[in-house]
Amino acid sequence: MPITRPEFERPFGKLVDDVIDHSKQYGLPQEGLDWLQKSLVHNTIGGKYNRGMSVIDTTASLLGRTPNEDEYTRATVLGWMVEMLQSFFLVSDDIMDGSKTRRGSPCWYRMPHVGMVAINDALMIESSMYVLLKKYFRDHPRYVDLMELVHEVTFQTELGQCIDLLTAPEDHVNLSNFNLEKYLFIVRYKTAFYSFYLPVAMALYNLDLATERNLQQTRDILIPMGEYFQVQDDYLDAFADPEVLGKIGTDIQDNKCSWLINQALKRVTPEQRKILDDNYGRKDAICEAKVKDLFHELKLEQVYTDYEEEIVAKLRQDIAQVDASQGLKGEVFDEFLRKIYKRRK
Amino acid sequence: MPITRPEFERPFGKLVDDVIDHSKQYGLPQEGLDWLQKSLVHNTIGGKYNRGMSVIDTTASLLGRTPNEDEYTRATVLGWMVEMLQSFFLVSDDIMDGSKTRRGSPCWYRMPHVGMVAINDALMIESSMYVLLKKYFRDHPRYVDLMELVHEVTFQTELGQCIDLLTAPEDHVNLSNFNLEKYLFIVRYKTAFYSFYLPVAMALYNLDLATERNLQQTRDILIPMGEYFQVQDDYLDAFADPEVLGKIGTDIQDNKCSWLINQALKRVTPEQRKILDDNYGRKDAICEAKVKDLFHELKLEQVYTDYEEEIVAKLRQDIAQVDASQGLKGEVFDEFLRKIYKRRK
Repeated sequence: MPITRPEFERPFGKLVDDVIDHSKQYGLPQEGLDWLQKSLVHNTIGGKYNRGMSVIDTTASLLGRTPNEDEYTRATVLGWMVEMLQSFFLVSDDIMDGSKTRRGSPCWYRMPHVGMVAINDALMIESSMYVLLKKYFRDHPRYVDLMELVHEVTFQTELGQCIDLLTAPEDHVNLSNFNLEKYLFIVRYKTAFYSFYLPVAMALYNLDLATERNLQQTRDILIPMGEYFQVQDDYLDAFADPEVLGKIGTDIQDNKCSWLINQALKRVTPEQRKILDDNYGRKDAICEAKVKDLFHELKLEQVYTDYEEEIVAKLRQDIAQVDASQGLKGEVFDEFLRKIYKRRK
Repeated sequence: MPITRPEFERPFGKLVDDVIDHSKQYGLPQEGLDWLQKSLVHNTIGGKYNRGMSVIDTTASLLGRTPNEDEYTRATVLGWMVEMLQSFFLVSDDIMDGSKTRRGSPCWYRMPHVGMVAINDALMIESSMYVLLKKYFRDHPRYVDLMELVHEVTFQTELGQCIDLLTAPEDHVNLSNFNLEKYLFIVRYKTAFYSFYLPVAMALYNLDLATERNLQQTRDILIPMGEYFQVQDDYLDAFADPEVLGKIGTDIQDNKCSWLINQALKRVTPEQRKILDDNYGRKDAICEAKVKDLFHELKLEQVYTDYEEEIVAKLRQDIAQVDASQGLKGEVFDEFLRKIYKRRK
């Protein structure tokens, strides 16, 4: 039985207390303890928790039995570390992107009395991960590997963000900057490593099953699956019913280097290219509508459906061929695929 | 012979190459490699390097002989890690403080085509430290301790910055927020740990001399010395000749929770307190002059001179009593004190 959102949320308060207790030992003034607690809770709570919960589900799948208390506690800590890593990125990305809202509230840096202090709050969330890792894994045989894993995935995500910001600067539209190769780098590095590879790699280390072969197989399946996930995201941004999606897509107006614009650029005539050059990345609903019309004209919905069928068939084949001799199981990946295949939000 | 600035700078290019080579392995597009390199060099080069160089000088002092190649290379890496940690903090602090210039140039976030991307650049500098640590210390017996040390000092510095920002928000002057206890917390956490304790702790780990006793003695001497350093900084900001100091102090106009304002608050009559309330933290040269006049009236120069004599006497006494039985040496701290005693810039 996969973990539910409320079950996953329950132990989070204890982990916040751990970080606060650790900071108390430094004699941090009360106002600082209150601020840190508020920032940790506000920024980490309220998402879908798919990333964090998948550490726990993966742990159970790998074991093939209910985890014992130790295994479960540690999987929970790792799951929340993924969520904290994400909130560290989201708080800072929202500032860099000049975003307005996050999970239905104003972005943290736009909340009263926060502002640019949000940068330091993001950094404290990052540091809090290592407080938890040390507290719960100091004696674990894979403690060093877990630290290196988090360092590496953090850096990879920052490199992805770097290329994303260089490719699509907010203030300067130039579609010649875009191409599918760059798109795939951004998706792999900015999203796939921390959202897909990291949770499973953590679960493997936690159970001391992280052999080179198992990690390689995990990467080989989950990085393409992460690409598929982001392609879906980009597709839904333009084509999903906003009622079902729960938000209104803004990629076209925001000059995003998305899968759709890259597919369009591959297919346009010179006349159609001019429409894109004149209308993409403009904060204007009419421009946006022209781009969307062109996406329809280019039959990108069909291109997407074909892509989806092809990548899912390939993923299923790779999952079926997982070498389970070192303790990895295909069903770990089945569960990821089940959650995203043909999703509508 | 203490290391010189040019000697310290020489190997830095190689360390940048190490980080770039590591990123190449991910297939980072060339524009990303160029950007990362530019940010690393621009933000890390050009300071005084006192923090970084002290890792190397401390290593030589502890050994009592010229370090061998391995010891020296690793001390250099650690020294540059301290400088990178500092540049990670400075790039982000400058955004949070809305600063204009750094080392005579515009702050990184104010350079052309940078802006809020600077946040991600700061994060990549932080991550680059761990790339270097892994490359040069993977097989070192104290590798884990060094990771934990950098994690902990990073968090401590962020906690110091947190209290600093809460105590003296840019947009709201309230001197009742200030007190010496908070001042000391901010100084210890925001400055003393990473600038004074960290370099010596690193040198001790590098030579595998970081016993609990040696680390404790290092903290007991260098945290107070770091306080003294910051008190000097605050004193010089208002009282030094700008020609000698090399910059014009702005603490009074910037509403800084400095040592001088805290000493003044302890000594003022209600009438003098009103002068401070009306004039401190105002972006106005006349207000600033009124605060400075009051500092003179309260004889804060004498208060400072008395403080300096007392703290230096105490530090010398503590240094003389260093227990050298586990390989620590008092001369390590003498060198720190020599560099800052009665400094005028």
